Amino acid sequence: MTRKDLIEIIKKKQSLLCVGLDTDINKIPDFLKREFDNPVLEFNRRIIKATAGLAVAFKINTAFYESQGEKGWKNLILTIDMIPKDTFIIADAKRADIGNTSRMYAKAFFEKMKADAITIAPYMGRDSVKPFFDYKNKWIIILALTSNIGSKDFQYLTVDDKGTKLYEKVLKTSSKWGDIDNTMFVVGATHPEDFKNIRKIVPDHFLLVPGIGAQGGDLEQVLKKGLNSDYGLLINSSRGIIYASSDEEFDLAAKGKALELVNNIRKIIKF
Amino acid sequence: MTRKDLIEIIKKKQSLLCVGLDTDINKIPDFLKREFDNPVLEFNRRIIKATAGLAVAFKINTAFYESQGEKGWKNLILTIDMIPKDTFIIADAKRADIGNTSRMYAKAFFEKMKADAITIAPYMGRDSVKPFFDYKNKWIIILALTSNIGSKDFQYLTVDDKGTKLYEKVLKTSSKWGDIDNTMFVVGATHPEDFKNIRKIVPDHFLLVPGIGAQGGDLEQVLKKGLNSDYGLLINSSRGIIYASSDEEFDLAAKGKALELVNNIRKIIKF
Repeated sequence: MTRKDLIEIIKKKQSLLCVGLDTDINKIPDFLKREFDNPVLEFNRRIIKATAGLAVAFKINTAFYESQGEKGWKNLILTIDMIPKDTFIIADAKRADIGNTSRMYAKAFFEKMKADAITIAPYMGRDSVKPFFDYKNKWIIILALTSNIGSKDFQYLTVDDKGTKLYEKVLKTSSKWGDIDNTMFVVGATHPEDFKNIRKIVPDHFLLVPGIGAQGGDLEQVLKKGLNSDYGLLINSSRGIIYASSDEEFDLAAKGKALELVNNIRKIIKF
Repeated sequence: MTRKDLIEIIKKKQSLLCVGLDTDINKIPDFLKREFDNPVLEFNRRIIKATAGLAVAFKINTAFYESQGEKGWKNLILTIDMIPKDTFIIADAKRADIGNTSRMYAKAFFEKMKADAITIAPYMGRDSVKPFFDYKNKWIIILALTSNIGSKDFQYLTVDDKGTKLYEKVLKTSSKWGDIDNTMFVVGATHPEDFKNIRKIVPDHFLLVPGIGAQGGDLEQVLKKGLNSDYGLLINSSRGIIYASSDEEFDLAAKGKALELVNNIRKIIKF
């Protein structure tokens, strides 16, 4: 998907919402497990159907599927196949390896699965990221400042005598590897105080923002400080939406939670 | 596997060799593709059989399997099932995510697959690593100083006024998360000059050392500077061993290359 297409979808749906399909077999409604051979896929099918009108993007975290072995990996592929064309598809895989190996990951997620984007851990540097750029209209989303408490272990380290922090250095350096048409960054909503500064370094890039919802991030601050002239934000919510209810109408409950978040976004942004 | 068991295996096999099963369908001998329904699995079966007497460990890089979709993931599981019990099994997956997600990765690699260890990217910090420690006699292997050229982008950044580099900080900080019985570090053989320094920070930990062979690392320097009183090193070679030949006796050629490397190790170490 091109940047232009993504912006069109944002305008059409009047939303920045990314729904995270972190589907855990132990958390989905019991009736699905009783009534369906493949309850994870049925859960995803209903969640996608209920929320696709509101979601600009779906983010599939690979861990939840890998934990189910071979069948899980098949569900990952089948889930991506079910997602409507007018939605940006993110494989939240946090991969990266030496060059010849990253090429294999690019093949896995951009060819075998039809993901539009993959999340990338930056620690191994440029050559671990470069093979992903060989795919036209595909995106990498580099971890810059993550939403978890462990982000404080290394990402805030000062890496020069000007006081540059590691996450800022990652933004500065890796934003030059690609461009605004193939690179985004992960910035957690749990760090609203850093968005203004981040926008100084990468004013034009899209940011994928997890940490709203279950992790307690501040939506209003993120929007006020993070938006750019092309919107430039995808706001992710996973658990807060998909596990809104465990009864038979869990999909409607999810849609309700998604709409609540989208309405909160619409209060602040004119689309 | 316990540390004690690992050391016993090293002594018994008189080897530090880790064979990397980076099995690429496009690089395996053509006759396997003609004669077998599952040529990747047959390739792995023969390589494992030929080298298991020399290999202390096998390292399976997940990327090569993920690039083959669902069948690839199944081959990953089946390959691990084929590896003899007296070998340390490393899932080279370079995972890590927020806590509830890392728990899923731990389940994927320690329960669904019977890997002894998983490689971990440190960028997301402590809580992204912690769930892996809930498994007894399982190991995490944290990326410290990687073998690729991109290791210079961030890993050598100076992170305090004492001149500590990022990879040193990663070693110092993350070596406190676990202990020498559940944590190892990846240190590339392409940085032999750093091993002495690394041994000052983590004198007792095992190091997994890629970069010998195709990447040109210096075995003698690595052994001289990296060994500790419990050996403390696993020396990986992937492409240099498994693709030694593409004829029908590729497995014997692989065994020859493995023996060559093990003999070079035995010249320097008394087991």
